[in-house]
Amino acid sequence: MATIRDLILKNRSYRRFDQSYRIDEKTLRELVELARCSATAANRQPLKFMLSFEPAENELIFKTVGFARQLSWQGPAEGEKPSAYIIILGDLDISKSFGCDHGIAAQSILLGAVERGLGGVMLGSANKDVLRASLKIPEKYDILLVVALGKPKETVVLETVGPDGKTTYWRDEKSVHHVPKRTLEELIVR
Amino acid sequence: MATIRDLILKNRSYRRFDQSYRIDEKTLRELVELARCSATAANRQPLKFMLSFEPAENELIFKTVGFARQLSWQGPAEGEKPSAYIIILGDLDISKSFGCDHGIAAQSILLGAVERGLGGVMLGSANKDVLRASLKIPEKYDILLVVALGKPKETVVLETVGPDGKTTYWRDEKSVHHVPKRTLEELIVR
Repeated sequence: MATIRDLILKNRSYRRFDQSYRIDEKTLRELVELARCSATAANRQPLKFMLSFEPAENELIFKTVGFARQLSWQGPAEGEKPSAYIIILGDLDISKSFGCDHGIAAQSILLGAVERGLGGVMLGSANKDVLRASLKIPEKYDILLVVALGKPKETVVLETVGPDGKTTYWRDEKSVHHVPKRTLEELIVR
Repeated sequence: MATIRDLILKNRSYRRFDQSYRIDEKTLRELVELARCSATAANRQPLKFMLSFEPAENELIFKTVGFARQLSWQGPAEGEKPSAYIIILGDLDISKSFGCDHGIAAQSILLGAVERGLGGVMLGSANKDVLRASLKIPEKYDILLVVALGKPKETVVLETVGPDGKTTYWRDEKSVHHVPKRTLEELIVR
């Protein structure tokens, strides 16, 4: 029962997890239920969701997604990989454009995850052709976003963008993940 | 201190408000702060925010946005209009594409609003040329989304999509707004 501010602050993009922690199908369905009850442009509801929580399928997905491309890092090591994935698809039979519906849905899913002591990251840089082939995702679905989920096992801190204006995130020698954020003053133009 | 599920369920798209209720700048800044601390692709943070809470400027915005295009309805009447707006802009000097960042941001903003007893709606169908001219929004900003905010003064109920598959929302004789939602079974493809 945290405030939304608490949840949003806790909801960092986590990329290393306790892989031994399993996430079950019921939890994933509860998270999709949050997305189901969220806004969608003109109430079209064109999003579909594919759940993965078995190690073998997780591994298929893992091989197709990029984690933290800004770091010279190959992604989480064995033992630190996500425990589950929710792949957000756009049903082309319903709509040809999905606006920002997947952003709304993914934010609801991740806030629900954080409330449950879980966490994750939205991954937009999947190799979609390989992912489609590996999971046999029909052509009628656009692959919009992969949400990786798990029990976070890393510390992520927000800090203020420095005078150089760089927003690139970085890791220190203790593997703490630092995320430079623009100030509120910079974001509010009027 | 509600659960995220409570907040998401309460966070309907409200389009009629108690217009006499004023929303101050401080509240809007707190809501943008929630968006500031939310995820953004590759941490680029290309979104900017324009706040409106004075009646005269609110009216300028009101004239450019479409409310509930699916209803034969001209939008909220005088006395029921939004008390404030947050216009979400994409800064083209930072990025040429904004992915679903504005969906993530708008969802954070609206959940924060609901927690405060407010509510609102994401409006994607603004007449952007007129809005740009009215508010003198520089060309360097893409107009991505208008979030209207206020003290909700209508009842919105979720129901299940019927056998005809129609997702069009509708109003009954008591002006209750009905929103047909697809079932979880329909959304989860696997």
